[in-house]
Amino acid sequence: MKKKLKLGLFGFGCVGQGLYHVLEETSGIKAEIKKICVKHPDKVRPIPADRFTYRKEDLLLDEQIDVIVELIDDADAAFTILKEALQHGKHVVTANKKMLAEHLEEIYHLQQRYNRSVLYEGAVCGSIPIIRNLEEYYDNDLISGIEGIFNGSTNYILTKVFEERKGYHEALRQAQELGFAESDPSLDVKGFDPKFKLAIAITHAFGVFVKPEHILNIGIDNIDALDLKFAQDNGYAIKLVARAVKAGNEVFGLVAPQFVERQHNLYPVRNEYNAVTVVGAFAERQLFVGKGAGSYPTGSAVLSDISALTYDYRYEYKKLTQGNTHRFSNEAYLEAFIRFDQPELVRMHDFEEFHSGYAANGHHYMTGLVSLEKLRSWAASAKVGIILTPKTRIVSYIEKNREQACSAA
Amino acid sequence: MKKKLKLGLFGFGCVGQGLYHVLEETSGIKAEIKKICVKHPDKVRPIPADRFTYRKEDLLLDEQIDVIVELIDDADAAFTILKEALQHGKHVVTANKKMLAEHLEEIYHLQQRYNRSVLYEGAVCGSIPIIRNLEEYYDNDLISGIEGIFNGSTNYILTKVFEERKGYHEALRQAQELGFAESDPSLDVKGFDPKFKLAIAITHAFGVFVKPEHILNIGIDNIDALDLKFAQDNGYAIKLVARAVKAGNEVFGLVAPQFVERQHNLYPVRNEYNAVTVVGAFAERQLFVGKGAGSYPTGSAVLSDISALTYDYRYEYKKLTQGNTHRFSNEAYLEAFIRFDQPELVRMHDFEEFHSGYAANGHHYMTGLVSLEKLRSWAASAKVGIILTPKTRIVSYIEKNREQACSAA
Repeated sequence: MKKKLKLGLFGFGCVGQGLYHVLEETSGIKAEIKKICVKHPDKVRPIPADRFTYRKEDLLLDEQIDVIVELIDDADAAFTILKEALQHGKHVVTANKKMLAEHLEEIYHLQQRYNRSVLYEGAVCGSIPIIRNLEEYYDNDLISGIEGIFNGSTNYILTKVFEERKGYHEALRQAQELGFAESDPSLDVKGFDPKFKLAIAITHAFGVFVKPEHILNIGIDNIDALDLKFAQDNGYAIKLVARAVKAGNEVFGLVAPQFVERQHNLYPVRNEYNAVTVVGAFAERQLFVGKGAGSYPTGSAVLSDISALTYDYRYEYKKLTQGNTHRFSNEAYLEAFIRFDQPELVRMHDFEEFHSGYAANGHHYMTGLVSLEKLRSWAASAKVGIILTPKTRIVSYIEKNREQACSAA
Repeated sequence: MKKKLKLGLFGFGCVGQGLYHVLEETSGIKAEIKKICVKHPDKVRPIPADRFTYRKEDLLLDEQIDVIVELIDDADAAFTILKEALQHGKHVVTANKKMLAEHLEEIYHLQQRYNRSVLYEGAVCGSIPIIRNLEEYYDNDLISGIEGIFNGSTNYILTKVFEERKGYHEALRQAQELGFAESDPSLDVKGFDPKFKLAIAITHAFGVFVKPEHILNIGIDNIDALDLKFAQDNGYAIKLVARAVKAGNEVFGLVAPQFVERQHNLYPVRNEYNAVTVVGAFAERQLFVGKGAGSYPTGSAVLSDISALTYDYRYEYKKLTQGNTHRFSNEAYLEAFIRFDQPELVRMHDFEEFHSGYAANGHHYMTGLVSLEKLRSWAASAKVGIILTPKTRIVSYIEKNREQACSAA
């Protein structure tokens, strides 16, 4: 029934090797790796040298190869490979979230033009089948929001820092040793990696394309000992939360650290686990939890895409084709906890609503409702710490104006 | 691209009305209800009387109807409708877990014979897309186990009893008022409902058909105040857990109450929420949480099946067709906490391994490793209370023998 697929694999790092072994150890999937293209032909590798090439044409021009599996680090090179693969009539499976987030609209059109499929479940939250579920399950549902922990290495670091009172840098080093952190750790700790994933998820959840630079990302690299103490004193954890909501015909989204209460469904999500909550009108709150990092979980998601190609699966991007007129916007407020040490950096009138403020040991804190635009300007400074409050939610300018009009009436 | 489906609906109870409203309020799905068949034509209903009929032929013989959506209570009548619908060339969507569990093997063959699809996501854990995920996502993975909370009303009752110190009967009445409990509450509280769902999930997870009567179900109706006190003193919750594991070529499964520690991923699953953990070799532990009861969550799952039929989706039952030689077995042990008031009811030598025992206030407790067969005989008596211990796991006779052989060597 199913056809046997021949794969050309680019990259043999952590995920590539995970895929290789998952494929060796499973019998249910009709696919085999024909050739692997790597950058450094002379590197010692754990499998025979004749499996490798360093010329990309050996894969792209091989007519027997049905699917290019792209698992390299370099986003620009990956995009070039993707385009050439589609041009040569091959399907593509990729886990490169940066490349996808930056070029998703073009990739959508390329799939239509060449009538080939690009699948990327492994790019978003590792083993969690979130894209497939957003695509396949919710087309009939009205999704109002998604939120979750989209990055395994920062969650690992935050878990170690909180539970084992490890230092931040020690926890980061440990995450890298375990293969959870990207080779460039700033992608993780500054919140770029979860932002790329959020941009992709927004397209499948709401039918909107958004360039990653339009999404605010605040990382965990600026969290300090006082923030941790504040969290611990209040029984909170700190999680790096990616979220997006739909309000009217606007879609909002950002990535930022947040204080999370014990009752919150993200509180128990520890170590390299990721989690996604999908809020729909009828199915209500659905939670998906699974390993978001590591070679096997991601390799397994990549393999599930390969498996889907054996029965000609394609993303339908249903919400894009349903007469959607939504647009991405940053015109919204959130409640946040702002820490700063120089009084002139943050002022009461910077807040749309000021909720509380105090000073202790030469540090200042203020909490209140603040615009995304203001958060973005503060986030550019290492001197201001930003953590969203436990009950924060995205409030659009439109909603806020309506509220004010009502209370004035 | 998609065709517009015409639906014939049997039943207009809680889920049927949920479906009706979900369908009215969503625009993305190309389907409409042509006619609704109900039992009592004279009952006052919230929508116009001309939408209804009480003759099943009006639906089954209507050539314009593509899909029969069966949402009635009576499992035998439902199976008759399903067969007649397939014979008349119609696809079937159903949420009747009892009917499915009892006839799944025949339903599998009927689908092949008539080349029509039977979909039933709404039958297992309401809004959680677990069948679709077991079908679509894990074909390449080696699933070793599934476990979870498969029944919303008993979870609601246990939550109220624990958190609000409500009496058992008051909590049950409340669950029924909210529409979470079946019209026959013994299906819920005696663990039959989650057992039916487990039987269905076992087929999609492991490729094995199992008749529900072969699966042991222990309910929550026999939990007493001392069990609750024991749980509270130890910081445990009690959850009604459905589980199945694969070991060698055997598949084991049961439904039973279990003490659950605070760190356990089922501990925070409250009220009518359901949860399923899927344990796979590569994706490792995946958790799905969502509303498992109520008209909208189930209606939404039913609608997602209808939506899937617009692009000719069928369950592939992949694990059944992968040269599977697994069989369901009850030859296993679990660690359990056994409470009884007459000393002759339970004896130390009833346990394969005896771990602890004590007596207090005229009540006796023993914990130890005990066979499923012995649990089944005790479960038949209202005088013996059975709750699985927090770290319990299914240990097959084969594994146990191997252990003994090793320690003897």
